[in-house]
Amino acid sequence: MFNSIHEECGVFGIFDTKTSPVADTVYFGLHALQHRGQEACGIAVNSDGVFTHYKGDGLVADVFTPEKTALLGSGNMAIGHVRYSTTGGRDINNIQPLVVRHIKGNLALAHNGNLTNSDEIRKKIELSGGIFHGSSDTEAIAYSLVENRLTSDSTCEAVEKTMNTIKGAYSCVLMTATKIIAFRDPNGFRPLCMGRTAGGAFCVASESCALDAVGAEFMRDIRPGEIVEFSKDGMRSITSHCTEKSKSSMCVFEYIYFARPDSVLDGVSVHHARINAGRFLAMEHPVDADIVIGVPDSGLDAALGYASHSGTPYGIGFIKNKYTGRSFIQPSQKQRESTVKLKLNVIKESVNGKRVVMVDDSIVRGTTCAGIIRLLRNAGAKEVHLRISSPPFRHPCYFGTDIDSEENLIACKYDSVEETARVIGADSLGYLSVESTRKIAQGAGVCFCDGCFTGNYTVPVPENPAKNKYDTKIGEF
Amino acid sequence: MFNSIHEECGVFGIFDTKTSPVADTVYFGLHALQHRGQEACGIAVNSDGVFTHYKGDGLVADVFTPEKTALLGSGNMAIGHVRYSTTGGRDINNIQPLVVRHIKGNLALAHNGNLTNSDEIRKKIELSGGIFHGSSDTEAIAYSLVENRLTSDSTCEAVEKTMNTIKGAYSCVLMTATKIIAFRDPNGFRPLCMGRTAGGAFCVASESCALDAVGAEFMRDIRPGEIVEFSKDGMRSITSHCTEKSKSSMCVFEYIYFARPDSVLDGVSVHHARINAGRFLAMEHPVDADIVIGVPDSGLDAALGYASHSGTPYGIGFIKNKYTGRSFIQPSQKQRESTVKLKLNVIKESVNGKRVVMVDDSIVRGTTCAGIIRLLRNAGAKEVHLRISSPPFRHPCYFGTDIDSEENLIACKYDSVEETARVIGADSLGYLSVESTRKIAQGAGVCFCDGCFTGNYTVPVPENPAKNKYDTKIGEF
Amino acid sequence: MFNSIHEECGVFGIFDTKTSPVADTVYFGLHALQHRGQEACGIAVNSDGVFTHYKGDGLVADVFTPEKTALLGSGNMAIGHVRYSTTGGRDINNIQPLVVRHIKGNLALAHNGNLTNSDEIRKKIELSGGIFHGSSDTEAIAYSLVENRLTSDSTCEAVEKTMNTIKGAYSCVLMTATKIIAFRDPNGFRPLCMGRTAGGAFCVASESCALDAVGAEFMRDIRPGEIVEFSKDGMRSITSHCTEKSKSSMCVFEYIYFARPDSVLDGVSVHHARINAGRFLAMEHPVDADIVIGVPDSGLDAALGYASHSGTPYGIGFIKNKYTGRSFIQPSQKQRESTVKLKLNVIKESVNGKRVVMVDDSIVRGTTCAGIIRLLRNAGAKEVHLRISSPPFRHPCYFGTDIDSEENLIACKYDSVEETARVIGADSLGYLSVESTRKIAQGAGVCFCDGCFTGNYTVPVPENPAKNKYDTKIGEF
Amino acid sequence: MFNSIHEECGVFGIFDTKTSPVADTVYFGLHALQHRGQEACGIAVNSDGVFTHYKGDGLVADVFTPEKTALLGSGNMAIGHVRYSTTGGRDINNIQPLVVRHIKGNLALAHNGNLTNSDEIRKKIELSGGIFHGSSDTEAIAYSLVENRLTSDSTCEAVEKTMNTIKGAYSCVLMTATKIIAFRDPNGFRPLCMGRTAGGAFCVASESCALDAVGAEFMRDIRPGEIVEFSKDGMRSITSHCTEKSKSSMCVFEYIYFARPDSVLDGVSVHHARINAGRFLAMEHPVDADIVIGVPDSGLDAALGYASHSGTPYGIGFIKNKYTGRSFIQPSQKQRESTVKLKLNVIKESVNGKRVVMVDDSIVRGTTCAGIIRLLRNAGAKEVHLRISSPPFRHPCYFGTDIDSEENLIACKYDSVEETARVIGADSLGYLSVESTRKIAQGAGVCFCDGCFTGNYTVPVPENPAKNKYDTKIGEF
Repeated sequence: MFNSIHEECGVFGIFDTKTSPVADTVYFGLHALQHRGQEACGIAVNSDGVFTHYKGDGLVADVFTPEKTALLGSGNMAIGHVRYSTTGGRDINNIQPLVVRHIKGNLALAHNGNLTNSDEIRKKIELSGGIFHGSSDTEAIAYSLVENRLTSDSTCEAVEKTMNTIKGAYSCVLMTATKIIAFRDPNGFRPLCMGRTAGGAFCVASESCALDAVGAEFMRDIRPGEIVEFSKDGMRSITSHCTEKSKSSMCVFEYIYFARPDSVLDGVSVHHARINAGRFLAMEHPVDADIVIGVPDSGLDAALGYASHSGTPYGIGFIKNKYTGRSFIQPSQKQRESTVKLKLNVIKESVNGKRVVMVDDSIVRGTTCAGIIRLLRNAGAKEVHLRISSPPFRHPCYFGTDIDSEENLIACKYDSVEETARVIGADSLGYLSVESTRKIAQGAGVCFCDGCFTGNYTVPVPENPAKNKYDTKIGEF
Repeated sequence: MFNSIHEECGVFGIFDTKTSPVADTVYFGLHALQHRGQEACGIAVNSDGVFTHYKGDGLVADVFTPEKTALLGSGNMAIGHVRYSTTGGRDINNIQPLVVRHIKGNLALAHNGNLTNSDEIRKKIELSGGIFHGSSDTEAIAYSLVENRLTSDSTCEAVEKTMNTIKGAYSCVLMTATKIIAFRDPNGFRPLCMGRTAGGAFCVASESCALDAVGAEFMRDIRPGEIVEFSKDGMRSITSHCTEKSKSSMCVFEYIYFARPDSVLDGVSVHHARINAGRFLAMEHPVDADIVIGVPDSGLDAALGYASHSGTPYGIGFIKNKYTGRSFIQPSQKQRESTVKLKLNVIKESVNGKRVVMVDDSIVRGTTCAGIIRLLRNAGAKEVHLRISSPPFRHPCYFGTDIDSEENLIACKYDSVEETARVIGADSLGYLSVESTRKIAQGAGVCFCDGCFTGNYTVPVPENPAKNKYDTKIGEF
Repeated sequence: MFNSIHEECGVFGIFDTKTSPVADTVYFGLHALQHRGQEACGIAVNSDGVFTHYKGDGLVADVFTPEKTALLGSGNMAIGHVRYSTTGGRDINNIQPLVVRHIKGNLALAHNGNLTNSDEIRKKIELSGGIFHGSSDTEAIAYSLVENRLTSDSTCEAVEKTMNTIKGAYSCVLMTATKIIAFRDPNGFRPLCMGRTAGGAFCVASESCALDAVGAEFMRDIRPGEIVEFSKDGMRSITSHCTEKSKSSMCVFEYIYFARPDSVLDGVSVHHARINAGRFLAMEHPVDADIVIGVPDSGLDAALGYASHSGTPYGIGFIKNKYTGRSFIQPSQKQRESTVKLKLNVIKESVNGKRVVMVDDSIVRGTTCAGIIRLLRNAGAKEVHLRISSPPFRHPCYFGTDIDSEENLIACKYDSVEETARVIGADSLGYLSVESTRKIAQGAGVCFCDGCFTGNYTVPVPENPAKNKYDTKIGEF
Repeated sequence: MFNSIHEECGVFGIFDTKTSPVADTVYFGLHALQHRGQEACGIAVNSDGVFTHYKGDGLVADVFTPEKTALLGSGNMAIGHVRYSTTGGRDINNIQPLVVRHIKGNLALAHNGNLTNSDEIRKKIELSGGIFHGSSDTEAIAYSLVENRLTSDSTCEAVEKTMNTIKGAYSCVLMTATKIIAFRDPNGFRPLCMGRTAGGAFCVASESCALDAVGAEFMRDIRPGEIVEFSKDGMRSITSHCTEKSKSSMCVFEYIYFARPDSVLDGVSVHHARINAGRFLAMEHPVDADIVIGVPDSGLDAALGYASHSGTPYGIGFIKNKYTGRSFIQPSQKQRESTVKLKLNVIKESVNGKRVVMVDDSIVRGTTCAGIIRLLRNAGAKEVHLRISSPPFRHPCYFGTDIDSEENLIACKYDSVEETARVIGADSLGYLSVESTRKIAQGAGVCFCDGCFTGNYTVPVPENPAKNKYDTKIGEF
């Protein structure tokens, strides 16, 4: 499945013991996290307290040309961010890291997640004279940090106090003149881990695949609620403030779709979790078929799991065009129906005359899915049995995932699975059950959030969350 | 003379009574003000309270491609800004207009000038929990506006209170959900004027040439200390807060170099002021010569004035290459000596075998000047008498002009005019006297600041202004 | 395996019965053929005899922005080309299609392949007064076509005569004022096929995947030696000139690596041929192992074949970063060793503690291969058995494939397979035998060329082919 | 006057005795010739017989970025070209220099001018088997050179023979493996001169201002009909083939508009010729007025001449916006009327309440002119007397100038000067007489062509010149 659900961010940070090309390291780290956000990115470098930063719209490799990256210079610390932004939110002021010039010391912040009480926080700050440049939660966190810092003995103390104020999902990397501080919300909604390079530099990343990319050895995940400080005195973990009452609730969709299969999140391999999902799917929704194929890229692992458990042969059913650019011309009306063809083609040889199990990770509106099934039928597939390695989406996410609005969700539109199958043209359709979903990452040191499937959230969620409230008609300043 | 002294900014705003392509109007206005800042620009559009903005590095015509400009959409108000930024300050967060998302209403601000007490203001705000994204004074003004707004009955009242707090030079255009408010510091260091289009829209601009460019009729200058509000109720001027004690002190260098000759500032035509400067120069430093030529573009008017008063024929001595791009390749070491040649060539016919009076507006380091004189000699000029239509630079400007540091100023390096002449290779050299400089714009409704020539400033100036203080090594946040 | 062997070209043509957005169709066709050439591309549109064309360096989606594509306008015919160019040959004059303005009628030509007698042809033409702008063979074909046209009754007759003159590999699409003519050399070294859209337009393409992309139904392959003319009178096939003596010899490496798995070439599915290769490989080089993985993307199919025949489970061993851009910054010296990491990461879960069979399509220098094996070992693989789905490269290709020079080929450097295995760090190494290679596409209507493996070519090859002879020091014109 | 009449080209060449950054030198030379063609440019470098070239659409500084220029490398010879292309002729194949790869030696050619018999030449070549990539005359010259070279003992002999074949205007620079050869048609329609750098390198350029730009000393003009060869044996002039019968006929409009005022063409300063034109204009069309102003940039010199002869004071009436970019947004319908305002603004101070003489170099359609006069009236000018420093355009140019078609020329549309004056809104209008035009460059070693004014051409012109004949519907190839 592609292009319908969006993770909001990926973060990366490095603390080196000496001056090195830290911008390059962050570049490669962000490049490995590119799947978490393709619309904008930024890097801030700290060279002995002097902060240099650059950010822009686009992919890491496009924004950070060799020339621009060189401008960032060397340093001993740096943090970076990749971002996906919702329509209307494409504001240059929202691109991260957020860099604050402050008399007490400069500060840069990169954040993955979504606060549930940012409206309250902003309101309070604004009414006491504060100003916001953008609409991202990150500014709210930065304000809290600065405010708390003024009454704290250390930055870490300010982080602790801030964590008492902000609610929701946040996996953050903070850079000060002398330190990198990573912290993760008490529920651990979004992943965050750390590693160390052969040269002794500490790295923090949203996913372990970014540590691999920069040649850093994975050390461990940052724990829900934990604050980790990297400074010239080495690494220090702060958990004394962590209470028992917060139940960890890592986003289970990270395993199903967001994260890269080569990442290990909270102790469980994403690839392994997906294979598991495929296996459970085969148990729950078996079918007599000739071949199991996955929709590239995120359906492949689950297809392999399905095939291995069911005994039906695994095959390669699709080729994805890897040259699809951004400035793509729009197909004319007639050609538009087959838009999916520009990205995906069927290997006829694999499916012609066969009963096909097609595995994908999720369905949102169902249109792309229907298009792919049509491709299979045109290529001669006798039957198409769709298996989805997650439960149906029925509820919004308040923790950093951008799911379509409910009226567009196919699972909200049609009552029964049978009807949905008919609408998208599948001979049968099977979703992974919520119960099995909870078991795909067994062994992880954390519990999961599956609110988008169940409507049950581990923490209170806003009743009427304002959407882009700063873009509506409002009273005179 | 070119490329050595920099104005910091130009501003433009429009208040239309109905929805119109206001972004286009601001575009054309900024294009006419491009000489006031070529490094970055931005436009913010207000469509019934919804603010859309875009900004970037580069010239107006490069940043605002037709595609990008179209994204701004229509509206009934808009403001824009062109910026020159000093090295080190090329921070995307400093590009204006500054847009603030605030629960009390959105706000956008464009500012030309330089505060003398921004350090104090920032310090106070930061220590009470505020955060700054960039290093520009504009954020300090915005903070004050927001803070004062919370205790005021109207935006204009907040502007009044803010004007009591901020010191120095500021010609600002402020946009709220329902109003455009223009205000100018009590000394009127930088120009600001207003006009009206045939369609009834009000425009505010740094210079009248921008009103011409958008087809607006010049109404009048905004007076030093004045606040002018444009709303659906029309225009309202507020001057009740203006005290007698502030002495107007418009930057005289606006007439000599910054402003476009076709602009009229505070009642006096820039072209006329330059012709006057040339005339006074001819009175003060006459010389027997065959031809008077100006260094393009800013020396031409004064040359014409010199010629007309002296009776020596006016001629065209130089051709300036108008295709000089930004991505220019660097001439090799050998060729570098003649860099000036890429931009300027002598018309030999005009100067060969002649005694030449060459008029320019100012000398900074003297290197460019020496290069130009060498070109004239190579073209056969028998004598070169340099006449400068301003006094020598000897002091810093605290009000928005970026003059080289004192150790680089030729007038600080060499004691006598004779020595300076010798160093740059001129047969004689004459600067306009301070006394005459004060008379070039006689008839203007304001007095002038000539602190960069005299060291006497009309308002207190900072004793040890920090340079880029946020880019130095500082204590831990 | 990636980036070491290069196909030279892909071609696409359309003949519509009415005016339509033919440029768009060619765009989508070329986009599907992008894997055949990523360095440059071009499109020529014919609107009632008026030719418009555009070409440039880069990917189809980058060169043909919506704006540029729109400039090509509509038409009833168009042809296009994607190109890979060897170093030194990056000459804008070599980008195709070649458009010739001729008094007898305009002509555009796109060519995939390589002539073996182009030196002779060029020499003859040059010595009789002809001039060449570029160094591509395409100009030589165009010259022959034009020369022969002057003594022929039809364009097709000229094509026939030209096919008697030119030797080697050529799959061409020719556009005249009123016709599209496709022709393929008598040996059929490079593929070429045709199809028809629902609207009745004829399409010609290097591979069938491009027909799929534009919604055209595959009709059949153009046969070796065949000329097919598309005009308002429909389609006409000319084969009367085809003699029995030319033995078809399609490039077998098209199946192994070049072509897309979803293409069907000369009657055989590329995916199927690769699965076959994997099966034969398992027969020839069995090994006790825990998992079979393929190197993405071209090693995946053969890995599946190997797994299915051997009974060893198929797994997913690598994740390929799909965001790798062109303006990529260069990793520093230290980081360079792990360049391969930027593109490829191992799924540790899949290989840790296991005996791994890694399947790839070919080895050129061996360095990339060695890097990938190192990645596997670092991820905990106990054993790595490399299986290559083609025989070792030992000889040059004269028919359009750019293989490294012999001194760089690992198979020429080391005598034994054992030594090669040791050098690249594999526990064992097995190449597919030449005999099996000949059987992977059984059922194809053609025979194969395997000269790069065996040194036996089906047609005479040049003894001392000049490399870039126009770029060497030569006598005065 | 701006943007209505177009010169077709500028050429530059350098022959150095040693390897040097010749591409840079050509870059700076072309940059100085940019006014002769702004749509495309190219450079070809010769490094010991190996030719490297690059070309593209746009200004020299945009096409030749530092990166692209560096790719050209060093060499001992190079030639370059700037081009203006008529609509429809924007074909990449037409951008020069034309580089030919030939077995007898490589060849690069840059050409300024227009052949009158290129149709015949092309037809003859095409019918004997030759092919043309583009529609420029340059290919025809290259073909002739190559053909003649095959039967000649030297390149210069081939050039001589070619000059017997080609008719019309051509100022060419030819580069072979070992030589630079400059040649100019027997009538000398277009300028061409040579100079020498301090380092001993020979340079050839369309105008002397390009020699100034690269620090080369002007040596002399290439004479009509002359061939000059630069090789390791130094410089050699060949004129033995020049017959008495060809009357030199340099384009007089080069002095009036095309050339840069700082250039000296055939012994006469362009600036001086324009001053003369202004003087003659004052004699022929005197008027009582308060100020004489020129339309920038090309009307300024003649205005100065007019002022000096008439005694009416010279003034500066307009400011031209120097930041006008290419991607300029289009003003809306309402704003369009004032398009001219974006480029030009009136200095009110100069003209308000005055009787103004406005001097421009030419009128084509009259619309721009009318717009400028309207600007003056709006600024308060009491009277506007337009003086044109050339006779009215009434006839086409066959020698390289792109004049509007006759039905658009204001001088063809209206019978009398009085009517024209009324239409464009001038109080009076005076053109320079043909007789005076002939005298503006007295002292030049050549005679002039004024065919566009008189319809009398010094050489036969084509009766029905085909316009873009290769872009019309034609017979099947």
